[in-house]
Amino acid sequence: MSKSNFETVVNHMKSVGFVYQGSEIYGGLSNTWDFGPLGIELKDNVKKAWWQKFIQEDPNNVGMQSAILMNPQVWVASGHVGGFSDPLMDCKSCQTRYRADQLIEDFSKGEVNPSGWSKEEMKNYIEEHHVNCPNCGKHDWTDIREFNLMFKTFQGVTEDSKNTIYLRPETAQGIFVNFKNVQRTMRKKLPFGIGQIGKSFRNEITPGNFIFRTREFEQMELEFFCKPGEDIKWYDYYKDYCMNFLTTLGIKADNLRLREHDAEELSHYSNGTSDIEYRYQIGKGNDWGELWGIADRTDFDLTAHQNESKKSLEYQDPQTNEKYVPYCIEPSVGVERMMLAVMCDAYEEEQLENDTRKVLHLHPFLAPYKACILPLSKQLGDEAKEVFAKLASLFAITYDETGSIGKRYRRQDEIGTPFCITYDFDSKDDHSVTVRDRDTMEQVRIKIDELESYIASKIKL
Amino acid sequence: MSKSNFETVVNHMKSVGFVYQGSEIYGGLSNTWDFGPLGIELKDNVKKAWWQKFIQEDPNNVGMQSAILMNPQVWVASGHVGGFSDPLMDCKSCQTRYRADQLIEDFSKGEVNPSGWSKEEMKNYIEEHHVNCPNCGKHDWTDIREFNLMFKTFQGVTEDSKNTIYLRPETAQGIFVNFKNVQRTMRKKLPFGIGQIGKSFRNEITPGNFIFRTREFEQMELEFFCKPGEDIKWYDYYKDYCMNFLTTLGIKADNLRLREHDAEELSHYSNGTSDIEYRYQIGKGNDWGELWGIADRTDFDLTAHQNESKKSLEYQDPQTNEKYVPYCIEPSVGVERMMLAVMCDAYEEEQLENDTRKVLHLHPFLAPYKACILPLSKQLGDEAKEVFAKLASLFAITYDETGSIGKRYRRQDEIGTPFCITYDFDSKDDHSVTVRDRDTMEQVRIKIDELESYIASKIKL
Repeated sequence: MSKSNFETVVNHMKSVGFVYQGSEIYGGLSNTWDFGPLGIELKDNVKKAWWQKFIQEDPNNVGMQSAILMNPQVWVASGHVGGFSDPLMDCKSCQTRYRADQLIEDFSKGEVNPSGWSKEEMKNYIEEHHVNCPNCGKHDWTDIREFNLMFKTFQGVTEDSKNTIYLRPETAQGIFVNFKNVQRTMRKKLPFGIGQIGKSFRNEITPGNFIFRTREFEQMELEFFCKPGEDIKWYDYYKDYCMNFLTTLGIKADNLRLREHDAEELSHYSNGTSDIEYRYQIGKGNDWGELWGIADRTDFDLTAHQNESKKSLEYQDPQTNEKYVPYCIEPSVGVERMMLAVMCDAYEEEQLENDTRKVLHLHPFLAPYKACILPLSKQLGDEAKEVFAKLASLFAITYDETGSIGKRYRRQDEIGTPFCITYDFDSKDDHSVTVRDRDTMEQVRIKIDELESYIASKIKL
Repeated sequence: MSKSNFETVVNHMKSVGFVYQGSEIYGGLSNTWDFGPLGIELKDNVKKAWWQKFIQEDPNNVGMQSAILMNPQVWVASGHVGGFSDPLMDCKSCQTRYRADQLIEDFSKGEVNPSGWSKEEMKNYIEEHHVNCPNCGKHDWTDIREFNLMFKTFQGVTEDSKNTIYLRPETAQGIFVNFKNVQRTMRKKLPFGIGQIGKSFRNEITPGNFIFRTREFEQMELEFFCKPGEDIKWYDYYKDYCMNFLTTLGIKADNLRLREHDAEELSHYSNGTSDIEYRYQIGKGNDWGELWGIADRTDFDLTAHQNESKKSLEYQDPQTNEKYVPYCIEPSVGVERMMLAVMCDAYEEEQLENDTRKVLHLHPFLAPYKACILPLSKQLGDEAKEVFAKLASLFAITYDETGSIGKRYRRQDEIGTPFCITYDFDSKDDHSVTVRDRDTMEQVRIKIDELESYIASKIKL
């Protein structure tokens, strides 16, 4: 099974109902995407998988959901008002706008990583290496200036600075500001985690690569709080846990790697940061792309909010009565990036004897539809619909009665449905149906009454 | 069982971990709320219930998710740029700002419903009835002016009108603009529905009543498309279906009513509109509050987008080859309002013989936790945690080992956990646990191996 081509997967997702261009009938809105019936099912399943493994199965952890619109002081404390910006420069000759860091990265073909560089360092590199405008070839640059990535809006009737608020650029701060609320109302003891899934917004200058980098996206973030000194242990724990989660979802280990940030790349407050990268093969020389960031953020965030809000965010140890600001491990991942990794990994154009079939080998837990009910003939529609109704309260399933059985199997292969359930002329008598497996294409005869437990057992994570 | 007091329910939700004030440590941000660990579980369950009943179980219907940020032309076509506004007026004497329609409604104690009135009609009413400022008692009003309720933001580097976009004020338009995409990729035939759950934003001047009216909220909208002429049938179908859904969730029929809009209130394009109201008893004379709007919107929305986009949104009937713009039935409900109705309905302070207990009689499907695992003694912790691990991959459950069993039962009653599962000193030998029912407080002995199917059977919708 060879690694799929990124472009092929993107085209497939667009053509069968996973993703559409946002506002398409109006010519789109730059870099927005809408999820179709299959896309939303897959997306929800990715979120459910994360929630199950990071919240539900761990008695230490709980979930929450904070508002997208927060008091602007949150973003002062977090550093986003002051420092969450892109370094922009324009070509004076052709007026094309670039992110200076990206220009350097592209110029060096990924050899140089300018994250963490100052404006001066980037400017110097561009001068020394005589980096030209990729569009017009000239070397006539403006200075680099910082452009804040938070979307602004105004709450209330007047549009002045007093009413300026931001669309959150990350969900994590909603957890930090609620640390005490959650700890108190849920009577949690350290170590414990608080997780959140939700939309974030970043006014990126150069978004792109389909749903890999979008201005509006969804995050799954866990903030796991622990006693200072125990942080490295939990940091290591979550690096493993996240990697295992991905392979549990069926992603091939060969397409995953963990990249530990070196001292130069590491934030001053962090005791360790890693990226799990997936081999998206987006092209332009970038085989690997960031999927998941796992960081030991120490007490940086809680302390920042404690200082800014003048409210104590300390935890009192019930054994020792010691008071301290907890340390925090943060595994943070984007839903769309995980969807994309899962899709790239699952897509295959399989050579059969006389045929090629497109098939999505999605983990059954993630598959948009768990099963498709197929009446062998339209005459059997009523009975087949009864089977549909029996299962539809438990699983997302679909129904297809048009075309030959072979064609219908192929349609379901393309969208990753693990089981095709055919109701045939014997079904009424033997109370059974034929269940065909997406991956092996093998068929088994199963009692209708046993379908529920059969499917349930196969889709477990 | 008497109807609960709104204020009591609100306080309860705040105190046990359902809802916190948004950005609380910074003094809040007007009218924003964060959902705690219990709140997010309840909220997700409300969404799952809707999705199951409106999308999953109906082979006609599919889901989708459009972006929050859309091409601004969408909102020109939908009428939101031109007409989605509140009529505001200020008291010149004390500078308090009011919504003119609300002023009239409050003044008339709900007898007059000024929705659909022109600015002149409202101004005239206020003059004729000499409506004074509720704050300072003066009668010295500015003119009424329209204030658009869409939140504005800017995409890209400059903040000019060219880059102005809006946070969507409703999810419905994301469905309309994708009508053809969904119909084509999913090969749907009329009638069929497209549903969406997602955040919407309205810059309300007078939000309030806890999570009843917030600037940021989540909607569950279905757009059900059908052949013109069949719309009234489907309109009636969905009025019943929505009402049945609410009673299936356990909401008492006495606290629900359907209010059909009369000719005066009806939009010019609508063949019929109803509100399902719930008896929230918010106070201020308003016993009933709007929960669900169900509207027959005819072909108004698709035609508007067809005209504005110059793209055909017609459907070709596969039987007759006739082409037409479908009609559309829209049941539209807010997640937070449904949560609030469910909570108001479930809350009870029950008089026992020697005691009062607070209990949330939530439908088990909606309960934040389906079960709590209680070791009778901390010595039994390891074994009890094995039971936890057995069930936690299937259900959201919790674990509690502190305090007497009685106290622990009460804690779970307060948060609506339907089953308390006690692991005691006999459990190791008889492989069984005691399951105590939240509502009846009765206890049964159940084999540990049978817990999964026991719980699964009880939480079905």
